[in-house]
Amino acid sequence: MLQFDLLRTEGAARRGRLRLNHGVVETPIFMPVGTYGTVKGVMPRDLHAMGAQIILGNTFHLWLRPGLEVIRGFGGLHGFEGWTKPMLTDSGGFQVWSLGKMRKISEEGVRFASPVNGDRLLLTPEVSMQIQTVLDSDIVMQFDECTPYETDGVLTTEKQARASMALSLRWAKRSQAEFARLGNRNALFGIVQGGMYENLREESAAALAELDLPGYAIGGVSVGEPKDEMRRIVAHTPQRLPAHKPRYLMGVGTPEDLVEGVAQGVDLFDCVMPTRNARNGHLFTRFGDLKIRNARHKTDPRPIDPSCRCQACAGSTAADGTVSGGFSRAYLHHLDRCGEMLGPMLASIHNLHFYLNLMREIREALDAGRFAAWRVGFLADRARGVD
Amino acid sequence: MLQFDLLRTEGAARRGRLRLNHGVVETPIFMPVGTYGTVKGVMPRDLHAMGAQIILGNTFHLWLRPGLEVIRGFGGLHGFEGWTKPMLTDSGGFQVWSLGKMRKISEEGVRFASPVNGDRLLLTPEVSMQIQTVLDSDIVMQFDECTPYETDGVLTTEKQARASMALSLRWAKRSQAEFARLGNRNALFGIVQGGMYENLREESAAALAELDLPGYAIGGVSVGEPKDEMRRIVAHTPQRLPAHKPRYLMGVGTPEDLVEGVAQGVDLFDCVMPTRNARNGHLFTRFGDLKIRNARHKTDPRPIDPSCRCQACAGSTAADGTVSGGFSRAYLHHLDRCGEMLGPMLASIHNLHFYLNLMREIREALDAGRFAAWRVGFLADRARGVD
Repeated sequence: MLQFDLLRTEGAARRGRLRLNHGVVETPIFMPVGTYGTVKGVMPRDLHAMGAQIILGNTFHLWLRPGLEVIRGFGGLHGFEGWTKPMLTDSGGFQVWSLGKMRKISEEGVRFASPVNGDRLLLTPEVSMQIQTVLDSDIVMQFDECTPYETDGVLTTEKQARASMALSLRWAKRSQAEFARLGNRNALFGIVQGGMYENLREESAAALAELDLPGYAIGGVSVGEPKDEMRRIVAHTPQRLPAHKPRYLMGVGTPEDLVEGVAQGVDLFDCVMPTRNARNGHLFTRFGDLKIRNARHKTDPRPIDPSCRCQACAGSTAADGTVSGGFSRAYLHHLDRCGEMLGPMLASIHNLHFYLNLMREIREALDAGRFAAWRVGFLADRARGVD
Repeated sequence: MLQFDLLRTEGAARRGRLRLNHGVVETPIFMPVGTYGTVKGVMPRDLHAMGAQIILGNTFHLWLRPGLEVIRGFGGLHGFEGWTKPMLTDSGGFQVWSLGKMRKISEEGVRFASPVNGDRLLLTPEVSMQIQTVLDSDIVMQFDECTPYETDGVLTTEKQARASMALSLRWAKRSQAEFARLGNRNALFGIVQGGMYENLREESAAALAELDLPGYAIGGVSVGEPKDEMRRIVAHTPQRLPAHKPRYLMGVGTPEDLVEGVAQGVDLFDCVMPTRNARNGHLFTRFGDLKIRNARHKTDPRPIDPSCRCQACAGSTAADGTVSGGFSRAYLHHLDRCGEMLGPMLASIHNLHFYLNLMREIREALDAGRFAAWRVGFLADRARGVD
């Protein structure tokens, strides 16, 4: 089940509402990544508190660990990980692609050795649909081949990109047929490929539109290409997709990338950046980014971002009046130096809160018809740099 | 400032109330250990929620990182780590003792090389008091020498234990003098030593009582001695201490050890066991302990302990009705196998909740005058074993 209502537009930017089997998602939205059935270092309770509406799971990882038998016993990934709101799973295509020389791609699918125990495995469009049906995610992604930007330093040619895109299209059709055969009640998204070639992207988008899937993603970006190449595709492809269906830009990106994506008509985003960067002490703020490992924070009593309302920056007050949280840069610097878990825990909450709050601001700006002005102000704030 | 009211006794067990500069502590109580200014893997907010009334900090570790200049800038450890309730700091004696051959003990104090950067350092009773005064902990521990149980496989002789105990006594007097000179407004505790020799313990306790300190600890246990040796000292020493002053058993122990300690008249406990064991997948429950790494948990949908009300076992419901938490053994097993941070986070919350809830039950039993009966039931439950 998927129902998408376009509430308002401003230029190409869209304010929408997505109804899925496990609830409603207000778009544009950022989806925190929960690879192994957990958004790394963050309690589900805190995800709810910071306004996460939908999270990701990774088909490839969950297939290997804990395996489908375990998840089937919980009626799906929601029950297993204790998440009640919507969920999207990728198809596993990107992960097998990332195995590099350890996998072999054919028309049938991808053969590879399990990085966990060495088992010889075959992932196909059909198997991916079968796994995602057990996971029971609200949004299921077609199995695709992620077209590389370059291989061993050589750029992918148009011919190679066309063959790869055509393979993903055939896999889209097989995904759709298997999804239907399985009686999956969720929503299957197609994925536009075509590398850095706009004509191929256009062909891919047009062919996928004919399949009349409930939503579409732009894949094959954020795969090592220069930023301006990625921005060129983001400026091109979203608006070639059916206007009344949700659009998802996969694996992108920085806060600026998200704002740019919204401006180009994207509705859904995911990226490991907020959580992965948090674990490396890279913190996002309204006024630019901050490396908490830097010695200049050693004695700084200020929070990461005084304008931020997250548990790390602003803290919270319990029912009994006990104030908790509102931590200084000095304290976070100390936690990082000592390798204390609380460091990445607080940093992950902060970064995810920043991303989710960014999308909330974007939705409010779109609701008020002032996204263009908001965007100028946001980019200027971000460029200012942290005090 | 310290005021201790003995509210009720049952045999040697005591129900008390401790008033400290940062608040009131109901005893008997367990104090979670926050070595580097953080209870590993637990948000301060969750410590409050599970009823932590007082936590520990380690003088030795905090002296090295972040260092006193940083903490002084926050007016003490409370401000630095964002903890508003009472706090106890140890003296650093146990940690320098743990350095083994890397330190040299003399009448003056202990010389050692910093394990962080190799700096040559000297920790004395005076320096320990100076550090703890900067930390501004509610309970300050005297600088002591922890008498070893054995050295290179040879048991400590009575003569050695006497010399060590006498040194700790002289250091107690120097600690008291320096504490007064510094005008520290908190409460200094003395530490009974004497190894496994009851006569020495008795001498130590009597001499410390003459110093009229506001509270006393039993040190030099849980240093590698057999369990029955530890229990013998715990059955001996607490009741030799002034009845109207709080008694603290340092670094002990299992849930059964805590119950035994209370029965012998101990009021305060600390131990790294709940958090350290949590990070190794060792979980405490009402009905015995559970190793979450064991393959038998792989598909088990039950919580760690169905009778437990912690965030990991029972979850919580947000203001908007969203249910969160209440995780299965299968999910915790999966998190452990994948090395996901959420595993130790949930396990730490569970184990600390177990310890704090245990002490809450003990206080309630003492209030109701039925501690003896509660103790029999608790030990029988624990011995039953986990389903």
